[in-house]
Amino acid sequence: MQMVRSLRNKKERNEHGLFVAEGLKAVKELLASRVKTRSVYAVRKFDDIKAPLNLVSESEFAKMSSMKTPQGILAVAEKPSHKLSVGELKNELTLALAGIRDPGNMGSIVRAADWFGIKNVVCSSDTCDIYNPKAIAAAMGSAFRVKVHYTDPLAFLSEAKNNGITVYASATDGVSIYEAKLSAQGIIIIGNESKGVPEELKSLAAVKISIPSFGEAESLNAALACAAICCEFRRRKMSRETA
Amino acid sequence: MQMVRSLRNKKERNEHGLFVAEGLKAVKELLASRVKTRSVYAVRKFDDIKAPLNLVSESEFAKMSSMKTPQGILAVAEKPSHKLSVGELKNELTLALAGIRDPGNMGSIVRAADWFGIKNVVCSSDTCDIYNPKAIAAAMGSAFRVKVHYTDPLAFLSEAKNNGITVYASATDGVSIYEAKLSAQGIIIIGNESKGVPEELKSLAAVKISIPSFGEAESLNAALACAAICCEFRRRKMSRETA
Repeated sequence: MQMVRSLRNKKERNEHGLFVAEGLKAVKELLASRVKTRSVYAVRKFDDIKAPLNLVSESEFAKMSSMKTPQGILAVAEKPSHKLSVGELKNELTLALAGIRDPGNMGSIVRAADWFGIKNVVCSSDTCDIYNPKAIAAAMGSAFRVKVHYTDPLAFLSEAKNNGITVYASATDGVSIYEAKLSAQGIIIIGNESKGVPEELKSLAAVKISIPSFGEAESLNAALACAAICCEFRRRKMSRETA
Repeated sequence: MQMVRSLRNKKERNEHGLFVAEGLKAVKELLASRVKTRSVYAVRKFDDIKAPLNLVSESEFAKMSSMKTPQGILAVAEKPSHKLSVGELKNELTLALAGIRDPGNMGSIVRAADWFGIKNVVCSSDTCDIYNPKAIAAAMGSAFRVKVHYTDPLAFLSEAKNNGITVYASATDGVSIYEAKLSAQGIIIIGNESKGVPEELKSLAAVKISIPSFGEAESLNAALACAAICCEFRRRKMSRETA
């Protein structure tokens, strides 16, 4: 029990190489994925879950749960370690996250990556841990499919550039995504919620892109901007393919 | 103090007709807006704030604050009441929210509305209150500019339709937004995070639109989908204007 509870903490997750997926949907998605499940804890049997259950009392479960209204089921799983090979990204669209801090934003960006067929999300070390319980919840199963890497973004993006991969950076001073030349492959850098993409990374970008504003807001939420950008990249790809 | 704290509660906000904007940026945006500020509480003077301050101690402030790490300034303001005139929406793009529940999503949708120049957001009564402290924080000042209305969506959308306004509904079974005919004006219905747009509202839509999927996620987060849809509506408008 105590150990499950401790996995709310990033340090403990890293030390044990484990994380928690909570709720019926998350556990189902976890069991259907390639991620290795260690154990499932539940307060009762669930028709949809065929895996062996460790039945615990409601009060024991409450001690493990991170949810306000627990659904009575959670799983402990092994944090997958994905190999990051820059060469393999040449023909794909990839996201690079530079300092996304909010777990809700983090999870919904990974969910958007899954939606738009982006297989790899490469994060700076100060980006929110995808195995944070709130990020896992917001990712709605996509955290078990999309490969989320944590590495030095400067080294990664430099290597990508040397491999001929086009780097795009989301930036308020960029060209309109409606007009920018957008390729079907490349790496899109999304910056921190308040500071944006750091200058040292922005300078590696071949194209700086922005979403045109029609009103008075200073900026868009980073996750929302990311979704709008991915949607436009995919539109271009499709319009070229059908042209 | 007690009253400020009580405004975390929707019932109390409605009873008093008041809400709280917390943090330096929110208070600045509030004071620069048309929304009427009743009083500003702070633990010290702030150079940027010219309004009269009620100075309170750190411990008094902590009791009023809804933030984990309080910035030492908050304002109590009057909830504006906006007139909703369907006729005035004829030449504009408007959002209708049917049951958005998460305050973070609610705030970032209103922020996106502001970004994309959408002046009115019309919400069903089971949609999250925009004056919820977390929604206000996520809206980053946009809650003081965009007119957020709460009304019966069926009556509102029926009247809009009778006024010749095109209603769009975001729906997984809709036509691709890449291919759908999108006008520069109309009303876009965004549904609840898990249930989507209710059938009775969907049936009023002239066009059901969806964001094409390229991966395995079951759905996109509602706020992210909303941003991608607004971005595409604005792209079409601009491409027609420059054509």
